[in-house]
Amino acid sequence: MMNDRPLILITNDDGIQAKGIKELIFCLRAVGDIVVFAPDGPRSGMSSAITSVAPIHYTLVKKEEGLTQYCCSGTPVDCVKLAVNEVLDRKPDLLVSGINHGTNMAICVHYSGTMGAAIEGCIFNIPSIGVSLTDTHPDADFTESCRLARKLARTVLKEGLPKGTYLNLNVPNIPRVKGMKVCKQADGRWVKEFLRMKSPAGKEVYWLTGEFQNHHPVQDDSDTVALEAGYASLVPCKIDVTDYAYLNRFKQWEIEEQ
Amino acid sequence: MMNDRPLILITNDDGIQAKGIKELIFCLRAVGDIVVFAPDGPRSGMSSAITSVAPIHYTLVKKEEGLTQYCCSGTPVDCVKLAVNEVLDRKPDLLVSGINHGTNMAICVHYSGTMGAAIEGCIFNIPSIGVSLTDTHPDADFTESCRLARKLARTVLKEGLPKGTYLNLNVPNIPRVKGMKVCKQADGRWVKEFLRMKSPAGKEVYWLTGEFQNHHPVQDDSDTVALEAGYASLVPCKIDVTDYAYLNRFKQWEIEEQ
Repeated sequence: MMNDRPLILITNDDGIQAKGIKELIFCLRAVGDIVVFAPDGPRSGMSSAITSVAPIHYTLVKKEEGLTQYCCSGTPVDCVKLAVNEVLDRKPDLLVSGINHGTNMAICVHYSGTMGAAIEGCIFNIPSIGVSLTDTHPDADFTESCRLARKLARTVLKEGLPKGTYLNLNVPNIPRVKGMKVCKQADGRWVKEFLRMKSPAGKEVYWLTGEFQNHHPVQDDSDTVALEAGYASLVPCKIDVTDYAYLNRFKQWEIEEQ
Repeated sequence: MMNDRPLILITNDDGIQAKGIKELIFCLRAVGDIVVFAPDGPRSGMSSAITSVAPIHYTLVKKEEGLTQYCCSGTPVDCVKLAVNEVLDRKPDLLVSGINHGTNMAICVHYSGTMGAAIEGCIFNIPSIGVSLTDTHPDADFTESCRLARKLARTVLKEGLPKGTYLNLNVPNIPRVKGMKVCKQADGRWVKEFLRMKSPAGKEVYWLTGEFQNHHPVQDDSDTVALEAGYASLVPCKIDVTDYAYLNRFKQWEIEEQ
Protein backbone atom coordinates (compact mmCIF):
# COMPACT_ATOMS: atom_id res chain seq x y z
CA MET A 1 0.00 0.00 0.00
CA MET A 2 3.03 2.31 0.34
CA ASN A 3 3.71 4.75 -2.43
CA ASP A 4 5.85 7.80 -3.09
CA ARG A 5 3.01 10.24 -3.48
CA PRO A 6 2.81 12.93 -0.83
CA LEU A 7 0.03 12.58 1.75
CA ILE A 8 -2.14 15.70 1.97
CA LEU A 9 -4.55 16.30 4.84
CA ILE A 10 -7.44 18.56 3.84
CA THR A 11 -9.83 20.21 6.26
CA ASN A 12 -11.89 23.40 6.51
CA ASP A 13 -14.34 25.29 8.70
CA ASP A 14 -17.32 25.47 6.34
CA GLY A 15 -17.93 21.74 6.66
CA ILE A 16 -17.40 18.78 4.35
CA GLN A 17 -20.40 19.68 2.18
CA ALA A 18 -19.05 23.12 1.23
CA LYS A 19 -18.14 23.82 -2.39
CA GLY A 20 -14.77 25.27 -1.33
CA ILE A 21 -13.44 22.01 0.12
CA LYS A 22 -14.85 19.92 -2.72
CA GLU A 23 -13.07 22.04 -5.33
CA LEU A 24 -9.87 21.99 -3.27
CA ILE A 25 -9.97 18.18 -3.05
CA PHE A 26 -10.51 17.92 -6.79
CA CYS A 27 -7.62 20.24 -7.66
CA LEU A 28 -5.13 18.67 -5.23
CA ARG A 29 -5.67 15.07 -6.36
CA ALA A 30 -3.04 15.59 -9.02
CA VAL A 31 -0.54 16.59 -6.32
CA GLY A 32 -0.83 13.71 -3.86
CA ASP A 33 -2.94 11.20 -1.97
CA ILE A 34 -5.69 12.96 -0.09
CA VAL A 35 -7.21 12.37 3.31
CA VAL A 36 -10.11 14.69 4.09
CA PHE A 37 -10.96 15.10 7.76
CA ALA A 38 -13.45 17.93 7.97
CA PRO A 39 -16.26 19.10 10.24
CA ASP A 40 -19.69 17.55 9.54
CA GLY A 41 -21.21 21.03 9.26
CA PRO A 42 -20.33 24.72 9.29
CA ARG A 43 -17.79 25.85 11.94
CA SER A 44 -17.07 29.39 10.73
CA GLY A 45 -15.42 31.76 13.18
CA MET A 46 -14.33 28.89 15.44
CA SER A 47 -10.72 30.10 15.59
CA SER A 48 -8.54 27.51 17.39
CA ALA A 49 -11.45 26.35 19.55
CA ILE A 50 -11.25 22.82 20.96
CA THR A 51 -14.00 20.61 22.36
CA SER A 52 -13.11 19.71 25.92
CA VAL A 53 -16.52 19.44 27.65
CA ALA A 54 -17.89 16.61 25.50
CA PRO A 55 -16.53 13.74 23.43
CA ILE A 56 -16.36 13.96 19.64
CA HIS A 57 -16.73 11.32 16.96
CA TYR A 58 -15.97 10.79 13.28
CA THR A 59 -17.36 8.81 10.36
CA LEU A 60 -15.82 7.42 7.19
CA VAL A 61 -17.65 9.07 4.29
CA LYS A 62 -15.90 7.63 1.25
CA LYS A 63 -12.78 5.69 0.33
CA GLU A 64 -11.36 5.30 -3.14
CA GLU A 65 -7.89 5.08 -4.70
CA GLY A 66 -5.91 8.07 -3.44
CA LEU A 67 -8.81 9.72 -1.60
CA THR A 68 -10.28 8.96 1.82
CA GLN A 69 -12.89 11.24 3.37
CA TYR A 70 -14.02 11.50 6.98
CA CYS A 71 -16.35 13.92 8.68
CA CYS A 72 -16.15 14.81 12.36
CA SER A 73 -18.45 16.31 14.97
CA GLY A 74 -15.75 18.64 16.33
CA THR A 75 -14.16 21.97 15.49
CA PRO A 76 -11.52 22.42 12.74
CA VAL A 77 -8.75 22.04 15.36
CA ASP A 78 -10.45 18.93 16.77
CA CYS A 79 -10.42 17.52 13.23
CA VAL A 80 -6.67 18.00 12.85
CA LYS A 81 -5.96 16.64 16.33
CA LEU A 82 -8.15 13.57 15.87
CA ALA A 83 -6.85 12.80 12.38
CA VAL A 84 -3.21 13.02 13.42
CA ASN A 85 -3.57 11.31 16.83
CA GLU A 86 -6.01 8.53 16.01
CA VAL A 87 -6.75 8.04 12.34
CA LEU A 88 -3.80 8.59 10.00
CA ASP A 89 -1.10 5.93 9.59
CA ARG A 90 1.59 8.56 9.18
CA LYS A 91 2.10 12.29 9.54
CA PRO A 92 0.87 14.13 6.43
CA ASP A 93 3.42 15.88 4.21
CA LEU A 94 1.09 18.86 3.88
CA LEU A 95 -2.08 20.24 5.41
CA VAL A 96 -4.35 22.50 3.39
CA SER A 97 -7.35 24.10 5.09
CA GLY A 98 -10.11 25.62 2.99
CA ILE A 99 -10.94 26.88 0.56
CA ASN A 100 -12.85 29.21 2.87
CA HIS A 101 -15.98 30.97 1.64
CA GLY A 102 -14.87 34.44 2.73
CA THR A 103 -11.67 36.36 3.40
CA ASN A 104 -9.28 35.66 6.28
CA MET A 105 -6.99 38.62 5.73
CA ALA A 106 -5.49 40.87 8.42
CA ILE A 107 -6.62 40.11 12.01
CA CYS A 108 -9.16 37.56 10.71
CA VAL A 109 -6.37 35.05 11.20
CA HIS A 110 -7.37 35.17 14.88
CA TYR A 111 -11.08 34.41 14.38
CA SER A 112 -10.89 31.99 11.50
CA GLY A 113 -11.52 28.28 11.89
CA THR A 114 -9.78 27.78 8.56
CA MET A 115 -6.63 29.32 10.01
CA GLY A 116 -7.15 27.55 13.36
CA ALA A 117 -6.74 24.25 11.50
CA ALA A 118 -3.61 25.54 9.73
CA ILE A 119 -2.13 26.66 13.08
CA GLU A 120 -2.84 23.21 14.52
CA GLY A 121 -1.14 21.50 11.58
CA CYS A 122 1.87 23.72 12.16
CA ILE A 123 1.94 22.79 15.86
CA PHE A 124 2.23 19.16 14.68
CA ASN A 125 5.16 20.21 12.44
CA ILE A 126 3.11 19.57 9.31
CA PRO A 127 3.71 22.23 6.61
CA SER A 128 0.33 23.96 6.71
CA ILE A 129 -1.58 26.39 4.51
CA GLY A 130 -4.93 28.10 4.99
CA VAL A 131 -6.67 29.20 1.79
CA SER A 132 -9.56 31.68 1.58
CA LEU A 133 -11.53 33.33 -1.20
CA THR A 134 -12.97 36.81 -0.70
CA ASP A 135 -16.47 35.59 -1.57
CA THR A 136 -18.88 34.23 1.03
CA HIS A 137 -21.44 32.83 -1.44
CA PRO A 138 -22.11 29.08 -1.25
CA ASP A 139 -21.67 28.85 -5.04
CA ALA A 140 -18.60 31.09 -5.30
CA ASP A 141 -16.19 30.56 -8.21
CA PHE A 142 -13.08 28.81 -6.86
CA THR A 143 -11.24 28.50 -10.21
CA GLU A 144 -8.50 31.01 -9.46
CA SER A 145 -8.15 30.13 -5.77
CA CYS A 146 -7.79 26.43 -6.66
CA ARG A 147 -5.16 27.19 -9.27
CA LEU A 148 -3.11 29.25 -6.80
CA ALA A 149 -3.65 26.76 -3.94
CA ARG A 150 -2.28 23.97 -6.14
CA LYS A 151 0.75 26.03 -7.17
CA LEU A 152 1.45 26.89 -3.55
CA ALA A 153 0.93 23.30 -2.38
CA ARG A 154 3.52 22.11 -4.91
CA THR A 155 5.96 24.83 -3.82
CA VAL A 156 5.56 23.98 -0.13
CA LEU A 157 5.97 20.25 -0.77
CA LYS A 158 9.22 21.01 -2.62
CA GLU A 159 10.64 23.76 -0.40
CA GLY A 160 9.17 22.93 3.01
CA LEU A 161 8.36 25.54 5.65
CA PRO A 162 10.39 26.66 8.65
CA LYS A 163 9.37 24.99 11.94
CA GLY A 164 6.61 27.02 13.57
CA THR A 165 5.63 28.91 10.40
CA TYR A 166 2.34 28.46 8.51
CA LEU A 167 0.90 30.24 5.49
CA ASN A 168 -2.23 32.33 5.05
CA LEU A 169 -3.31 32.60 1.39
CA ASN A 170 -6.19 34.89 0.47
CA VAL A 171 -7.46 35.13 -3.10
CA PRO A 172 -9.55 38.02 -4.44
CA ASN A 173 -12.88 37.27 -6.06
CA ILE A 174 -11.99 38.37 -9.60
CA PRO A 175 -11.90 36.41 -12.88
CA ARG A 176 -8.13 36.75 -13.36
CA VAL A 177 -5.86 37.23 -10.34
CA LYS A 178 -2.72 39.21 -11.18
CA GLY A 179 -0.44 36.94 -9.18
CA MET A 180 0.54 36.14 -5.61
CA LYS A 181 2.26 38.66 -3.33
CA VAL A 182 4.06 37.86 -0.10
CA CYS A 183 2.67 40.28 2.47
CA LYS A 184 2.46 41.11 6.10
CA GLN A 185 -0.76 40.98 8.12
CA ALA A 186 -2.54 44.32 7.73
CA ASP A 187 -3.11 46.47 10.78
CA GLY A 188 -6.81 47.21 11.26
CA ARG A 189 -9.98 46.09 12.94
CA TRP A 190 -13.69 45.53 12.45
CA VAL A 191 -16.09 48.38 13.23
CA LYS A 192 -19.91 48.68 13.52
CA GLU A 193 -19.85 45.08 14.58
CA PHE A 194 -23.44 44.45 15.67
CA LEU A 195 -26.91 44.72 14.26
CA ARG A 196 -29.43 45.10 17.06
CA MET A 197 -32.78 43.40 16.54
CA LYS A 198 -35.76 42.02 18.42
CA SER A 199 -36.33 38.31 18.78
CA PRO A 200 -39.89 37.07 18.12
CA ALA A 201 -40.35 37.09 21.92
CA GLY A 202 -39.35 40.77 22.06
CA LYS A 203 -35.88 40.24 23.52
CA GLU A 204 -33.09 42.52 22.35
CA VAL A 205 -30.45 40.49 20.53
CA TYR A 206 -27.26 41.33 18.64
CA TRP A 207 -26.12 39.84 15.38
CA LEU A 208 -22.45 40.01 14.46
CA THR A 209 -21.75 41.95 11.27
CA GLY A 210 -19.41 44.89 10.66
CA GLU A 211 -16.88 46.18 8.21
CA PHE A 212 -13.11 46.02 8.19
CA GLN A 213 -11.25 49.28 8.67
CA ASN A 214 -7.57 49.54 7.82
CA HIS A 215 -5.40 51.38 10.30
CA HIS A 216 -3.99 54.51 8.67
CA PRO A 217 -1.50 55.04 7.19
CA VAL A 218 -2.09 51.81 5.26
CA GLN A 219 1.12 49.91 4.62
CA ASP A 220 1.80 48.99 1.00
CA ASP A 221 3.12 45.53 1.78
CA SER A 222 0.05 44.42 3.76
CA ASP A 223 -2.41 41.75 2.68
CA THR A 224 -5.45 44.01 2.38
CA VAL A 225 -3.61 46.25 -0.10
CA ALA A 226 -2.52 43.31 -2.26
CA LEU A 227 -6.09 41.96 -2.39
CA GLU A 228 -7.54 45.34 -3.33
CA ALA A 229 -4.96 45.59 -6.13
CA GLY A 230 -6.08 42.25 -7.61
CA TYR A 231 -3.32 40.05 -6.18
CA ALA A 232 -3.59 37.03 -3.94
CA SER A 233 -1.91 37.70 -0.58
CA LEU A 234 0.41 35.20 1.08
CA VAL A 235 1.28 35.94 4.71
CA PRO A 236 3.83 33.71 6.49
CA CYS A 237 2.68 33.50 10.13
CA LYS A 238 4.23 32.27 13.36
CA ILE A 239 2.94 29.96 16.11
CA ASP A 240 5.17 31.78 18.58
CA VAL A 241 3.36 35.03 19.34
CA THR A 242 5.96 36.32 21.83
CA ASP A 243 6.66 40.02 21.35
CA TYR A 244 10.46 39.72 21.17
CA ALA A 245 10.89 43.39 20.29
CA TYR A 246 9.67 44.35 23.75
CA LEU A 247 10.81 41.37 25.78
CA ASN A 248 13.73 43.22 27.37
CA ARG A 249 11.66 46.31 28.02
CA PHE A 250 9.17 44.23 29.98
CA LYS A 251 11.99 42.57 31.95
CA GLN A 252 12.07 45.63 34.21
CA TRP A 253 8.56 44.64 35.32
CA GLU A 254 9.81 41.44 36.89
CA ILE A 255 8.66 41.25 40.47
CA GLU A 256 10.98 39.45 42.83
CA GLU A 257 9.59 38.37 46.16
CA GLN A 258 11.56 38.50 49.43
CA MET B 1 -21.05 60.60 37.34
CA MET B 2 -17.56 61.13 35.90
CA ASN B 3 -14.62 60.28 38.08
CA ASP B 4 -10.87 59.82 37.76
CA ARG B 5 -10.78 56.16 38.58
CA PRO B 6 -9.63 53.87 35.80
CA LEU B 7 -12.32 51.80 34.09
CA ILE B 8 -11.48 48.10 34.09
CA LEU B 9 -13.31 45.59 31.89
CA ILE B 10 -13.23 42.08 33.34
CA THR B 11 -14.18 38.94 31.44
CA ASN B 12 -13.21 35.26 31.38
CA ASP B 13 -13.96 31.94 29.70
CA ASP B 14 -15.10 29.92 32.72
CA GLY B 15 -18.29 31.95 32.99
CA ILE B 16 -19.51 34.60 35.40
CA GLN B 17 -20.19 32.04 38.18
CA ALA B 18 -16.58 30.83 38.34
CA LYS B 19 -14.54 31.45 41.48
CA GLY B 20 -11.63 32.80 39.44
CA ILE B 21 -13.54 35.79 38.06
CA LYS B 22 -15.22 36.51 41.41
CA GLU B 23 -11.88 36.69 43.19
CA LEU B 24 -10.43 38.81 40.39
CA ILE B 25 -13.32 41.28 40.65
CA PHE B 26 -12.86 41.50 44.41
CA CYS B 27 -9.13 42.14 44.21
CA LEU B 28 -9.33 44.74 41.40
CA ARG B 29 -12.01 46.90 43.06
CA ALA B 30 -9.26 48.79 44.88
CA VAL B 31 -7.67 49.60 41.51
CA GLY B 32 -10.59 51.06 39.56
CA ASP B 33 -14.23 50.99 38.59
CA ILE B 34 -15.18 47.58 37.29
CA VAL B 35 -17.45 46.47 34.50
CA VAL B 36 -17.80 42.71 34.24
CA PHE B 37 -19.01 41.39 30.89
CA ALA B 38 -18.57 37.64 31.02
CA PRO B 39 -20.08 34.53 29.45
CA ASP B 40 -23.19 33.17 31.17
CA GLY B 41 -21.57 29.74 31.45
CA PRO B 42 -18.32 27.89 30.74
CA ARG B 43 -16.56 28.65 27.42
CA SER B 44 -13.22 26.95 27.98
CA GLY B 45 -11.10 26.27 24.92
CA MET B 46 -13.08 28.73 22.81
CA SER B 47 -9.95 30.53 21.59
CA SER B 48 -10.93 33.67 19.60
CA ALA B 49 -14.18 32.08 18.41
CA ILE B 50 -17.00 34.43 17.42
CA THR B 51 -20.70 33.75 17.05
CA SER B 52 -21.73 34.59 13.52
CA VAL B 53 -24.52 32.11 12.77
CA ALA B 54 -26.91 33.25 15.52
CA PRO B 55 -27.60 36.42 17.49
CA ILE B 56 -26.33 36.84 21.04
CA HIS B 57 -27.80 38.66 24.02
CA TYR B 58 -26.75 40.00 27.42
CA THR B 59 -28.31 40.66 30.82
CA LEU B 60 -27.53 43.10 33.61
CA VAL B 61 -26.72 40.97 36.66
CA LYS B 62 -25.87 43.57 39.30
CA LYS B 63 -25.09 47.26 39.60
CA GLU B 64 -23.57 48.96 42.60
CA GLU B 65 -21.13 51.83 43.18
CA GLY B 66 -18.01 51.09 41.14
CA LEU B 67 -19.13 47.66 39.94
CA THR B 68 -21.50 46.71 37.14
CA GLN B 69 -21.88 43.08 36.06
CA TYR B 70 -23.35 41.67 32.86
CA CYS B 71 -23.51 38.15 31.55
CA CYS B 72 -23.69 37.27 27.87
CA SER B 73 -24.74 34.27 25.80
CA GLY B 74 -21.68 34.51 23.53
CA THR B 75 -18.02 33.53 23.52
CA PRO B 76 -15.33 35.46 25.42
CA VAL B 77 -14.52 37.43 22.24
CA ASP B 78 -18.24 38.14 21.69
CA CYS B 79 -18.31 39.52 25.25
CA VAL B 80 -15.50 41.97 24.57
CA LYS B 81 -16.96 42.99 21.20
CA LEU B 82 -20.45 43.52 22.57
CA ALA B 83 -19.28 45.39 25.68
CA VAL B 84 -17.08 47.80 23.69
CA ASN B 85 -19.43 48.27 20.72
CA GLU B 86 -22.80 48.47 22.47
CA VAL B 87 -22.66 48.68 26.24
CA LEU B 88 -19.79 50.73 27.64
CA ASP B 89 -19.92 54.54 27.65
CA ARG B 90 -16.20 54.78 27.03
CA LYS B 91 -13.25 52.60 26.13
CA PRO B 92 -11.88 50.82 29.20
CA ASP B 93 -8.41 51.75 30.47
CA LEU B 94 -7.63 48.10 31.05
CA LEU B 95 -9.03 44.67 30.23
CA VAL B 96 -8.29 41.72 32.51
CA SER B 97 -9.46 38.26 31.47
CA GLY B 98 -9.56 35.47 34.03
CA ILE B 99 -8.53 34.28 36.42
CA ASN B 100 -8.64 31.07 34.46
CA HIS B 101 -9.01 27.75 36.21
CA GLY B 102 -6.07 26.07 34.48
CA THR B 103 -2.82 27.03 32.78
CA ASN B 104 -2.57 28.90 29.48
CA MET B 105 1.18 28.64 29.06
CA ALA B 106 3.08 27.89 25.83
CA ILE B 107 0.88 27.18 22.79
CA CYS B 108 -2.25 27.19 24.98
CA VAL B 109 -2.46 30.87 24.09
CA HIS B 110 -3.95 29.63 20.80
CA TYR B 111 -6.73 27.49 22.33
CA SER B 112 -7.61 29.61 25.34
CA GLY B 113 -10.83 31.61 25.55
CA THR B 114 -9.23 33.62 28.35
CA MET B 115 -6.49 34.69 25.97
CA GLY B 116 -8.98 35.12 23.10
CA ALA B 117 -10.62 37.87 25.15
CA ALA B 118 -7.25 39.48 25.87
CA ILE B 119 -6.38 39.41 22.16
CA GLU B 120 -9.71 41.05 21.37
CA GLY B 121 -9.12 43.78 23.93
CA CYS B 122 -5.75 44.41 22.34
CA ILE B 123 -7.35 44.65 18.88
CA PHE B 124 -9.50 47.45 20.36
CA ASN B 125 -6.30 49.13 21.61
CA ILE B 126 -7.24 48.45 25.23
CA PRO B 127 -4.22 47.40 27.35
CA SER B 128 -5.13 43.76 27.94
CA ILE B 129 -3.99 41.00 30.26
CA GLY B 130 -4.99 37.34 30.47
CA VAL B 131 -4.44 35.70 33.87
CA SER B 132 -4.43 31.95 34.51
CA LEU B 133 -3.74 29.72 37.50
CA THR B 134 -2.25 26.24 37.00
CA ASP B 135 -5.13 24.61 38.88
CA THR B 136 -8.32 23.48 37.18
CA HIS B 137 -10.32 22.84 40.38
CA PRO B 138 -13.52 24.87 40.81
CA ASP B 139 -12.43 25.77 44.35
CA ALA B 140 -8.78 26.53 43.54
CA ASP B 141 -6.89 29.00 45.77
CA PHE B 142 -6.55 32.29 43.87
CA THR B 143 -4.74 34.23 46.63
CA GLU B 144 -1.36 34.44 44.92
CA SER B 145 -2.75 34.86 41.41
CA CYS B 146 -4.97 37.73 42.59
CA ARG B 147 -2.07 39.44 44.31
CA LEU B 148 0.06 39.26 41.15
CA ALA B 149 -2.82 40.21 38.86
CA ARG B 150 -3.41 43.35 40.94
CA LYS B 151 0.28 44.28 40.88
CA LEU B 152 0.38 43.79 37.13
CA ALA B 153 -2.87 45.70 36.57
CA ARG B 154 -1.42 48.69 38.45
CA THR B 155 1.82 48.51 36.46
CA VAL B 156 -0.01 48.36 33.13
CA LEU B 157 -2.32 51.25 34.07
CA LYS B 158 0.78 53.31 34.89
CA GLU B 159 3.11 52.23 32.07
CA GLY B 160 0.67 51.32 29.30
CA LEU B 161 1.37 48.68 26.68
CA PRO B 162 2.71 49.05 23.14
CA LYS B 163 -0.01 49.05 20.46
CA GLY B 164 -0.71 45.47 19.37
CA THR B 165 0.87 43.85 22.44
CA TYR B 166 -1.05 41.99 25.16
CA LEU B 167 0.13 40.09 28.23
CA ASN B 168 -0.21 36.43 29.21
CA LEU B 169 0.26 35.91 32.97
CA ASN B 170 0.34 32.36 34.34
CA VAL B 171 0.64 31.69 38.06
CA PRO B 172 1.78 28.37 39.55
CA ASN B 173 -0.45 26.63 42.05
CA ILE B 174 1.82 26.96 45.10
CA PRO B 175 1.31 28.73 48.44
CA ARG B 176 4.08 31.29 47.87
CA VAL B 177 5.07 32.28 44.34
CA LYS B 178 8.74 33.34 44.09
CA GLY B 179 8.01 36.30 41.84
CA MET B 180 7.10 37.13 38.25
CA LYS B 181 9.43 36.41 35.34
CA VAL B 182 9.14 37.90 31.86
CA CYS B 183 9.34 34.94 29.49
CA LYS B 184 8.86 33.80 25.97
CA GLN B 185 6.22 31.32 24.88
CA ALA B 186 7.63 27.81 25.32
CA ASP B 187 8.04 25.58 22.30
CA GLY B 188 6.14 22.34 22.71
CA ARG B 189 2.86 20.56 22.09
CA TRP B 190 0.24 18.31 23.57
CA VAL B 191 0.60 14.54 23.13
CA LYS B 192 -1.68 11.53 23.80
CA GLU B 193 -4.56 13.88 23.19
CA PHE B 194 -7.57 11.56 23.17
CA LEU B 195 -9.20 9.02 25.39
CA ARG B 196 -11.26 6.60 23.32
CA MET B 197 -14.47 5.37 24.87
CA LYS B 198 -17.85 3.88 24.00
CA SER B 199 -21.01 5.94 24.23
CA PRO B 200 -24.01 4.26 25.92
CA ALA B 201 -25.26 3.48 22.39
CA GLY B 202 -21.99 1.69 21.58
CA LYS B 203 -20.56 4.43 19.36
CA GLU B 204 -16.82 5.06 19.48
CA VAL B 205 -16.17 8.57 20.78
CA TYR B 206 -13.05 10.54 21.67
CA TRP B 207 -12.56 12.75 24.68
CA LEU B 208 -9.85 15.42 24.58
CA THR B 209 -7.17 14.99 27.23
CA GLY B 210 -3.39 14.76 26.87
CA GLU B 211 -0.20 16.03 28.41
CA PHE B 212 2.07 18.90 27.46
CA GLN B 213 5.50 18.01 26.13
CA ASN B 214 8.24 20.62 25.95
CA HIS B 215 10.30 20.67 22.80
CA HIS B 216 13.91 19.76 23.63
CA PRO B 217 16.26 21.40 24.34
CA VAL B 218 14.03 23.38 26.71
CA GLN B 219 14.83 27.08 26.68
CA ASP B 220 15.52 28.60 30.10
CA ASP B 221 13.63 31.81 29.41
CA SER B 222 10.38 30.09 28.44
CA ASP B 223 7.16 30.23 30.45
CA THR B 224 6.95 26.50 31.25
CA VAL B 225 10.40 26.62 32.88
CA ALA B 226 9.50 29.66 35.01
CA LEU B 227 6.30 27.98 36.22
CA GLU B 228 8.09 24.76 37.11
CA ALA B 229 10.63 26.80 39.11
CA GLY B 230 7.88 28.42 41.19
CA TYR B 231 7.65 31.75 39.35
CA ALA B 232 4.69 33.33 37.63
CA SER B 233 5.37 33.70 33.90
CA LEU B 234 4.59 36.89 32.01
CA VAL B 235 4.72 36.60 28.21
CA PRO B 236 4.24 39.76 26.12
CA CYS B 237 2.42 38.65 22.95
CA LYS B 238 1.66 40.22 19.57
CA ILE B 239 -1.54 40.52 17.55
CA ASP B 240 0.56 40.65 14.39
CA VAL B 241 1.58 37.03 13.74
CA THR B 242 3.52 37.78 10.54
CA ASP B 243 6.79 35.85 10.38
CA TYR B 244 9.02 38.83 9.60
CA ALA B 245 12.21 36.77 9.91
CA TYR B 246 11.24 34.83 6.79
CA LEU B 247 9.26 37.44 4.89
CA ASN B 248 12.03 38.12 2.38
CA ARG B 249 12.81 34.44 1.93
CA PHE B 250 9.19 33.82 0.96
CA LYS B 251 9.25 36.75 -1.48
CA GLN B 252 10.94 34.46 -4.03
CA TRP B 253 7.70 32.46 -4.05
CA GLU B 254 5.76 35.35 -5.50
CA ILE B 255 3.94 34.25 -8.60
CA GLU B 256 3.47 36.88 -11.27
CA GLU B 257 0.96 36.20 -14.00
CA GLN B 258 1.44 37.21 -17.64
